[in-house]
Amino acid sequence: MVEIRQEFIEQAKHLTRNAEVLPGGIEELAVKLQYSHDTNTPLRVKLGMDPTRPDLHLGHTVVMRKLREFQNLGHKIVLIVGGATAMVGDPSGKSETRPALTKEQVEENAKSYFEQMSKVLDVSKAEVTNNADWLHKMSFIDLLKLASQVTVAQMMTRDDFAKRYAEGKPIAIHEFFYPLMQAYDSVEIDSDIELGGTDQRFNTLLGRDIQAAYGKKYPQLVMLLPLLEGTDGVVKMSKTYPEHCISLTDSEFDMFGKLMSIPDNMISRYFSLLTDATKEELEAIDKQIAEGSVNPRDIKMKLAYTITAEYHGEDGAKRGQDAFVNIVSNKGIPDDIEEISGMNGKGILDVLVELKFVQSKGEAKRLIQGGGVKLNGEKIADMAYTLNLDEDVVLQAGKRKFAKLLK
Amino acid sequence: MVEIRQEFIEQAKHLTRNAEVLPGGIEELAVKLQYSHDTNTPLRVKLGMDPTRPDLHLGHTVVMRKLREFQNLGHKIVLIVGGATAMVGDPSGKSETRPALTKEQVEENAKSYFEQMSKVLDVSKAEVTNNADWLHKMSFIDLLKLASQVTVAQMMTRDDFAKRYAEGKPIAIHEFFYPLMQAYDSVEIDSDIELGGTDQRFNTLLGRDIQAAYGKKYPQLVMLLPLLEGTDGVVKMSKTYPEHCISLTDSEFDMFGKLMSIPDNMISRYFSLLTDATKEELEAIDKQIAEGSVNPRDIKMKLAYTITAEYHGEDGAKRGQDAFVNIVSNKGIPDDIEEISGMNGKGILDVLVELKFVQSKGEAKRLIQGGGVKLNGEKIADMAYTLNLDEDVVLQAGKRKFAKLLK
Repeated sequence: MVEIRQEFIEQAKHLTRNAEVLPGGIEELAVKLQYSHDTNTPLRVKLGMDPTRPDLHLGHTVVMRKLREFQNLGHKIVLIVGGATAMVGDPSGKSETRPALTKEQVEENAKSYFEQMSKVLDVSKAEVTNNADWLHKMSFIDLLKLASQVTVAQMMTRDDFAKRYAEGKPIAIHEFFYPLMQAYDSVEIDSDIELGGTDQRFNTLLGRDIQAAYGKKYPQLVMLLPLLEGTDGVVKMSKTYPEHCISLTDSEFDMFGKLMSIPDNMISRYFSLLTDATKEELEAIDKQIAEGSVNPRDIKMKLAYTITAEYHGEDGAKRGQDAFVNIVSNKGIPDDIEEISGMNGKGILDVLVELKFVQSKGEAKRLIQGGGVKLNGEKIADMAYTLNLDEDVVLQAGKRKFAKLLK
Repeated sequence: MVEIRQEFIEQAKHLTRNAEVLPGGIEELAVKLQYSHDTNTPLRVKLGMDPTRPDLHLGHTVVMRKLREFQNLGHKIVLIVGGATAMVGDPSGKSETRPALTKEQVEENAKSYFEQMSKVLDVSKAEVTNNADWLHKMSFIDLLKLASQVTVAQMMTRDDFAKRYAEGKPIAIHEFFYPLMQAYDSVEIDSDIELGGTDQRFNTLLGRDIQAAYGKKYPQLVMLLPLLEGTDGVVKMSKTYPEHCISLTDSEFDMFGKLMSIPDNMISRYFSLLTDATKEELEAIDKQIAEGSVNPRDIKMKLAYTITAEYHGEDGAKRGQDAFVNIVSNKGIPDDIEEISGMNGKGILDVLVELKFVQSKGEAKRLIQGGGVKLNGEKIADMAYTLNLDEDVVLQAGKRKFAKLLK
């Protein structure tokens, strides 16, 4: 048994401050880090990507930031575009939600994915692969050999399979192949560590088992990162709930504003998952919030500034912060809002659509119903409201859209 | 709806007198027979064969006789050598019972299989295929498409899977592929009927489903034949119990003798599954046995003669019968047994081995322990018994092996 030096225990502790390492915990990670250092062999750190959904948001950056930490330590990031699965789509024909992509679409999506990813880590230093390159070449016998490594009972320990089976919902046999394919990727790229969200526990650990079955002496560790909640602090951040989702392509104003809208109990978590805060810094923040020694809003401002600066630079973060402060000190109305004329006599639905504050009259109606449309701070309740201006008024739609309508 | 003519209902009734037709029963079979006749299109009748076990016994002939019935009606027999599965073997590595065969071994086994099969049906008129020809060419995407047609829950309705899963015994994922592969064979050869033993219910019905999923308008019927019991009348006939198994390569003497050893309650079943007896003839036999109007031994003689004649001709059947009658009338000792000298002074174990009555001393011991070795009709109990001959004696080993040992 090799003695693990303190340096690598500390490194492993830092890397796992906001992550879970399986199956061996911190010590096994420390051994890998030390061995990598002593043999001058960078660890191969794997991340698989689904090229069907190339729009990245802050939730995606949690795992990407962890990749960057490994990259900064000199290890090799191996990115796998899931071309094989994407080109299959959902072959059961029962769902149209995941149509098969062509090779060109996969490449285009991957390109967009990497562009956004470059905001977090150095993609040019990463090894970029596409699992179609090996999976599509597997023969019938190769596939049977792969499938023979896992039992039905093992597969059924995966949460979603167990749940669907218990509820009598169909699981098509080919669905068993998705985890097997992801696992086989680990054999092909010879990974030492695989990263993923906590929902990837089964698939990533299967990668370790399959590597061992194919003869790898020291199979991969698995590092799982929490799934970030949206700005409501409740549901996982996702494009499905755009109002609680912060895209990497959001403007500095939107990004800063949305970050300021998170509930106080999310401050520490966002710091932990979206910034480089050390364990000590995180503990200090937790203490400040618990003691009430600092206004949570001020801590949130620091959070919003730090994150916005990462995607829009210091200048962008300042612009975002200034705009936010102006809105607040101005009872919610920013200083420099656009002035619009020619709206007098028009219906409120038409005005909202014309100003592009909403995508459709339907959305305008829902916004009014939710109390999100105001004139000079007064909520409008009547869908059929017609503007009859004898003075300039400020129209507000939602939290961050304003216009001054000239009489 | 086409009217089914009586002729084809009668034909279907005759074909199913000792078989089960699924899922539609006799009427659906009659429709296929009539359509085949009216369009002058022979039905394609499928049988898959496992080329790992080429030694055929009477149990195998049950389904082969049914193929012959279809062949005699002018239909096309399609024999599929399971080369794909045989060449995979058992890839789990957990069992050495089914090693992978090479292409050459598969071909050699298939050749031996067909030679024996030719004793029952005209193989030269059959279409002979090897599923390696299409299964080994399937791409990754082809396989996923195939696997997507069936759910885990459906697969688990197969008796052995359900049992093993319930008992916590492992089922490797690739095992799900065997039924899928067999089912896909039906798509490839475009079969109208698939034959099999009753243990093939799931696999053959899956073939029907998969044909439908791949667009066949009138997918295959399934005809299941009973599994024949061995001569003990209890356990399925199998090489695993050679003393209850009648091989197609058995001599006329062994075949006749073994057939005469079946219990009376098997007479009707053997007639039904191993001869061309019509439903009326079977009913007559049942009646004779039930009434006791004919000695069951005489009916059995007719059975043994009929079956032996099929594999050894009329002359062979007569030789088998004469030898059998001689043994019986001679208190179990046949007329013309071989005379052996030079055994005096030898141990009984050595004698049994030297005469090739047993394969090994171990087998000799077991035979003695079971009371199966006699000298002049007296059982020998002592393993160390040494021959001390002052007259010629008859040595008997088991039921049908005799020698006269000269003093």
